[in-house]
Amino acid sequence: MRAATLPDPVCGGGEPPDIATDLAARYADMRARTVALAAPLSPEDAQLQSMPEASPAKWHLAHTTWFFSRFVLGDAPGEMPARWDFLFNSYYVGAGERHERAHRGLVSRPALADVLAWRDAIDARMLERLAAGGFTPHQLDLLLLGVHHEQQHQELLLTDIKHALWCNPLQPAYDPGCTIERAHLGRADDADAPAGAPGGWITCGERIVDIGAPPWPGAGFAYDNESPRHRVLLGAHAIALRPVDNAGYAAFVADGGYATPALWLSDGWDLAQREGWRRPLYWHEDGAREFTLAGWSERDPEAPVRHLSHYEADAFARWSGARLPTEYEWEHASPRLAGIGQAWEWTSSAHAPYPGFRPLPGTLGEYNGKFMSGQLVLRGGSCATPAGHARSSYRNFFAPHARWQFSGLRLARDTD
Amino acid sequence: MRAATLPDPVCGGGEPPDIATDLAARYADMRARTVALAAPLSPEDAQLQSMPEASPAKWHLAHTTWFFSRFVLGDAPGEMPARWDFLFNSYYVGAGERHERAHRGLVSRPALADVLAWRDAIDARMLERLAAGGFTPHQLDLLLLGVHHEQQHQELLLTDIKHALWCNPLQPAYDPGCTIERAHLGRADDADAPAGAPGGWITCGERIVDIGAPPWPGAGFAYDNESPRHRVLLGAHAIALRPVDNAGYAAFVADGGYATPALWLSDGWDLAQREGWRRPLYWHEDGAREFTLAGWSERDPEAPVRHLSHYEADAFARWSGARLPTEYEWEHASPRLAGIGQAWEWTSSAHAPYPGFRPLPGTLGEYNGKFMSGQLVLRGGSCATPAGHARSSYRNFFAPHARWQFSGLRLARDTD
Amino acid sequence: MRAATLPDPVCGGGEPPDIATDLAARYADMRARTVALAAPLSPEDAQLQSMPEASPAKWHLAHTTWFFSRFVLGDAPGEMPARWDFLFNSYYVGAGERHERAHRGLVSRPALADVLAWRDAIDARMLERLAAGGFTPHQLDLLLLGVHHEQQHQELLLTDIKHALWCNPLQPAYDPGCTIERAHLGRADDADAPAGAPGGWITCGERIVDIGAPPWPGAGFAYDNESPRHRVLLGAHAIALRPVDNAGYAAFVADGGYATPALWLSDGWDLAQREGWRRPLYWHEDGAREFTLAGWSERDPEAPVRHLSHYEADAFARWSGARLPTEYEWEHASPRLAGIGQAWEWTSSAHAPYPGFRPLPGTLGEYNGKFMSGQLVLRGGSCATPAGHARSSYRNFFAPHARWQFSGLRLARDTD
Amino acid sequence: MRAATLPDPVCGGGEPPDIATDLAARYADMRARTVALAAPLSPEDAQLQSMPEASPAKWHLAHTTWFFSRFVLGDAPGEMPARWDFLFNSYYVGAGERHERAHRGLVSRPALADVLAWRDAIDARMLERLAAGGFTPHQLDLLLLGVHHEQQHQELLLTDIKHALWCNPLQPAYDPGCTIERAHLGRADDADAPAGAPGGWITCGERIVDIGAPPWPGAGFAYDNESPRHRVLLGAHAIALRPVDNAGYAAFVADGGYATPALWLSDGWDLAQREGWRRPLYWHEDGAREFTLAGWSERDPEAPVRHLSHYEADAFARWSGARLPTEYEWEHASPRLAGIGQAWEWTSSAHAPYPGFRPLPGTLGEYNGKFMSGQLVLRGGSCATPAGHARSSYRNFFAPHARWQFSGLRLARDTD
Repeated sequence: MRAATLPDPVCGGGEPPDIATDLAARYADMRARTVALAAPLSPEDAQLQSMPEASPAKWHLAHTTWFFSRFVLGDAPGEMPARWDFLFNSYYVGAGERHERAHRGLVSRPALADVLAWRDAIDARMLERLAAGGFTPHQLDLLLLGVHHEQQHQELLLTDIKHALWCNPLQPAYDPGCTIERAHLGRADDADAPAGAPGGWITCGERIVDIGAPPWPGAGFAYDNESPRHRVLLGAHAIALRPVDNAGYAAFVADGGYATPALWLSDGWDLAQREGWRRPLYWHEDGAREFTLAGWSERDPEAPVRHLSHYEADAFARWSGARLPTEYEWEHASPRLAGIGQAWEWTSSAHAPYPGFRPLPGTLGEYNGKFMSGQLVLRGGSCATPAGHARSSYRNFFAPHARWQFSGLRLARDTD
Repeated sequence: MRAATLPDPVCGGGEPPDIATDLAARYADMRARTVALAAPLSPEDAQLQSMPEASPAKWHLAHTTWFFSRFVLGDAPGEMPARWDFLFNSYYVGAGERHERAHRGLVSRPALADVLAWRDAIDARMLERLAAGGFTPHQLDLLLLGVHHEQQHQELLLTDIKHALWCNPLQPAYDPGCTIERAHLGRADDADAPAGAPGGWITCGERIVDIGAPPWPGAGFAYDNESPRHRVLLGAHAIALRPVDNAGYAAFVADGGYATPALWLSDGWDLAQREGWRRPLYWHEDGAREFTLAGWSERDPEAPVRHLSHYEADAFARWSGARLPTEYEWEHASPRLAGIGQAWEWTSSAHAPYPGFRPLPGTLGEYNGKFMSGQLVLRGGSCATPAGHARSSYRNFFAPHARWQFSGLRLARDTD
Repeated sequence: MRAATLPDPVCGGGEPPDIATDLAARYADMRARTVALAAPLSPEDAQLQSMPEASPAKWHLAHTTWFFSRFVLGDAPGEMPARWDFLFNSYYVGAGERHERAHRGLVSRPALADVLAWRDAIDARMLERLAAGGFTPHQLDLLLLGVHHEQQHQELLLTDIKHALWCNPLQPAYDPGCTIERAHLGRADDADAPAGAPGGWITCGERIVDIGAPPWPGAGFAYDNESPRHRVLLGAHAIALRPVDNAGYAAFVADGGYATPALWLSDGWDLAQREGWRRPLYWHEDGAREFTLAGWSERDPEAPVRHLSHYEADAFARWSGARLPTEYEWEHASPRLAGIGQAWEWTSSAHAPYPGFRPLPGTLGEYNGKFMSGQLVLRGGSCATPAGHARSSYRNFFAPHARWQFSGLRLARDTD
Repeated sequence: MRAATLPDPVCGGGEPPDIATDLAARYADMRARTVALAAPLSPEDAQLQSMPEASPAKWHLAHTTWFFSRFVLGDAPGEMPARWDFLFNSYYVGAGERHERAHRGLVSRPALADVLAWRDAIDARMLERLAAGGFTPHQLDLLLLGVHHEQQHQELLLTDIKHALWCNPLQPAYDPGCTIERAHLGRADDADAPAGAPGGWITCGERIVDIGAPPWPGAGFAYDNESPRHRVLLGAHAIALRPVDNAGYAAFVADGGYATPALWLSDGWDLAQREGWRRPLYWHEDGAREFTLAGWSERDPEAPVRHLSHYEADAFARWSGARLPTEYEWEHASPRLAGIGQAWEWTSSAHAPYPGFRPLPGTLGEYNGKFMSGQLVLRGGSCATPAGHARSSYRNFFAPHARWQFSGLRLARDTD
């Protein structure tokens, strides 16, 4: 397996210059896909909220629509059904008062059908106006942002419903035929390589590299936290060609990794004890199965390990005699990395502003900037990331205790 | 308004001697009523759990069915759909492990339709066996217990869904045409009576009275906590003919009742400050409306006040220069009390065992006995209590902070 | 051991008619005893607060002095050292704002020495004014109330410091020579009696009895919650001559009492699981020792069991095939009971107002009345209760989870 | 005020090569200073623990002694007074079980006097063995580490007791004559400079700089988290010559900084609302005074602002149109910075390992490395930092919500 085999969209980066011409088709396809992702869910499933950090599928369907209504069509709150502006604003303080996040699962009305009807109505207005050339260039930019925004929620819809169904003692499948998680890295070329880095390392001497994307709009699409593009000095290091797979992580578990405090960051160890962690989130205690969107399945030893917190990824790296890569090392190596796009990879980098960072103007300035505290950057993409959504400069971020995302790791180490 | 006008079933007490002959009809009617109560609810509504003390309507529908399956038909857990025994056992430790109460709202599967289908299947088996005379006398007793048990859940279904819908920022109606809460006490005969006791007092000199019901089975139906019938010495006292109405309680609010610590029990005052209580649970701050199963409605000054905690009822009584009645005073006076059946009435009596109390044998011994701690007795019945369910000896009980039931009060005072 | 051997003061009840003449001596003796109780404590010990329900010894020394300063001498807050009125008011809302109870352990200043000096100053003023006949009869009543109030705190000082020292991993003794806990019931006459009731039962047919004390002032001293004296109908019952001893309770432990949910009230079982209760609070897991004010000691099988919560006492009674007595049964039997005064005895009675209850006038009306919710009555007295403090009508009360008091039980059962 | 006027020790860095020869004097001086810092405290003061993150002064005195006993003298737990090894181990999992941090304030015994006597005994053994040349070179290294370790605790002793005394409603002074906090930056040269950066900016073009210290032992003393020394690329930027002073921060407060969510990180805003933050921790609401170790004092407008959380420092920087410096920018500029040593300065850098980071071997490997999560680096030093303790490469770290340290900020901004 080689980097050359990776699908283009993941590391492609940026929008083609003629993006506006096919925006209508792209919008419609993307919107349809969200509905398709929710199709296996009953109205009851679509209302589940298993923890404050997760949201109901119905809420994802509504919030992404609210984004187009509010920011692209410019609807005032009074132009939406009563209080929907309050219900479906996520965290934009600049857009007014919001419903408390932890209570999203208590919204039985509007019904799923009402939300889907609203989606249709907004889509009709969007497409009509697009066809009529009724959007300003700035509005077209916001539309494109809305497409990327909803793609993020497509992934969250899947991770959130997976967690919610797992909380049900019946642990039902989202869709027994779902193949989303069928990742497989293939057998490593070098069977003698250390557990963490089968397939070998990509080495890199000390050098100055360019990191990040030019600011959008103006260049191809990228979120505000990916710019400005700037120079970073990398030390001499090596980064694993392949991400850690289930077999590698199982060796850590078998070696007592969860019972060895010296391998763990202090916060992580305390949390693991308090929560009784003994293995990744969805692994069965039988050692053979894992819970997936298709229900309980045999665990593939050659699939990338997923559903790790940062603490577990970090402990595994220490056990391996290695470390997590920085997000810069990752980005620089990305064209040569294998296995990209199966699992988000925790880095050692805090989610911090790049030098010269400027948030988007206005209310959308809250998009990423205000979350630059207490979060760590993940790079890559996952089996649940929509095609074309991720790119080399993409900076995903979560708190270090988060495990319900499709999150794994890749090793790195210093060289000299 | 006189006690003579009250409907029979509330204070009637006991089952007619020919109960077994019409048990099938009674069973079927009762079961159909539960489904009818859930009819205005969408599958999403039926899944709502707004707090750990409340349960989803779907859970009520399933748990009451589980009761017949497990205790009357004698189904083993393995004869139910997988894990339903775990999901729908409420609190019977003797019946095995149970799902955590606070997580009932996360059970999107089985779907509402599956639960309703299970109800049909169990009902078919129940009625077939009844028709075939296939139940032992003991099983017929359990069947009757199951009927009363499900009637309790009919009321809880209504109080729980009312609370859940109120938690939605849209505050939708359960059913805009619902008339359940349309209670009206009528104008008091004596307009000059004190606020708390319009209509006057029923006086009672010191006397020994009989309290409670004979043990069932053996006599008419009563729960285990209502027996044995025993003698109690009442002191000289008076009890109000009518319960406190909204107008009377509004006077307490207007007089600063919620801002006067000297009127409150210490626990109640602390809780009221912490939760910011300023009026009964569902009263609007506009002073004119209240939230009902039919949505926001004008508050009727002559309706009994409802949705009070014990702390509020106690503070109101102190403000009135009176006190709450004991459950014995209430029971003794019950044939002469007006307004019975509109709102449960807090008493000053702790939910404690009567002298010689014997819980039901076996697992059903957990029915009431283990909750004789930290709860206070309410007497009477409410607009949501099924016809024929309550009786003079009936002992309802809730923790003193509970406000989501249809709970009000009636005054009493010592005389000499 | 017979009731006739009990020391007079415990059940003596009431004040002699010439109380005013020796009040100075009584005041001085009582005040000196509080200081003597604190004498084994270092300034650091005297500041310990191990949980919000407990208070530092220094706070007890100061609060009891505040009581005399504020209520008897009538000092305005400004006449005390700055903010001491705020610091040492316990729960009297009518006396102004108070320091948060849970933070009493953070008051390093005033120092213990300052508090002791304040005690001396207040005592000098009190005694001088007493000698000069400068108190009104009402103030003399308040002085007497203050004496009883401080005696209550003498017991709390001991239970609070015992708990605080036990929380120290070193588990030091309050005073290695302390004999306060050296209670011993002696061998029961009837070795064949059931575990719970060695020594036999005192039987009582149904009868009406007088309960409570006449209101004070006007009669001998009693707290407001002990009056009015009123008539109560007792059912036929038996009450154990002796309290449950350590040997009896150890049998319950050995029989799996802490692992048998059917023996427990629901709240108690949940709490016991959450807290990991396996035996009384201060019993060592070695089965032989218990923690006392004198440090770790051999457990005397014939001493009354102590440091039980109400839940444990209730579960033990159920295991014994008996029940807890009501407070009325206890009070009626009290002249004939053995073992009184070694451990407070949980009753099944909620702490509720007697018919016609009137709190003390003014701010002191908060003394007991506002705690008539969520508490259960204990009767008798303990090894830590000052001589002459308790009486037959005395109603001590604590929440059912409380274990740090010297609290045990005596069995009762219904007869017919 | 110019960097040239700063005392050498702060930015001096490293130990002179002949350090071993005067180690005894240095040890004795340092140890005496800790005792002197505790001298104004009563035994009661010395036991105060106001929050889990803070420790009692007595604990600091004991823990620092434990460090020498355990790690330098090599005492086994059994060679200390019983259980003191358990009580005074802070967080070294490798050194065995520890007392729960939040309960340190409950340790009244050993008494302060016992701890001071233990200090004397350990000091005698240390100095005797030093004089006898009885330590190996490795032990001498550990001794030096112990000196630096105790200096850190000297600062914590002051910040912890300041917080504890402030929690007392009397808010007493640690020492009315204490001059530790009398910092004064002097009037800025350039009165027209922006609020945040009086005195102007130090500019720096893009360049590669050396950051960190060489590993100790082997070079001058530095903690493990300061090494390896490595190359970092700085972008073009400017850093303020002087830290932000009280006058500058007061302008932010007056401008509604605490009521403007757009200025805050999301976590910080939520916390500020929850805790009701309106100004720095110890500022009086009267706008003129602040609480200091000398008690309530007039606030000096020209003193550096202190007791800010990272969230507040970050919001202030955003309000100023600037940002926090990275720790690399700070370290590179440090020889030219004014005001160093009055207040720790929050940087935007997460506390993360430097490339090639190696923790100390053995148990002491827990010293810094396991806290590289959820913490941000502060640079510089404070009025409470012992002379000679800090240096340019020093990396202090705290969680972003921490306010009880002497923590302020200095502005930076990107250029061109």
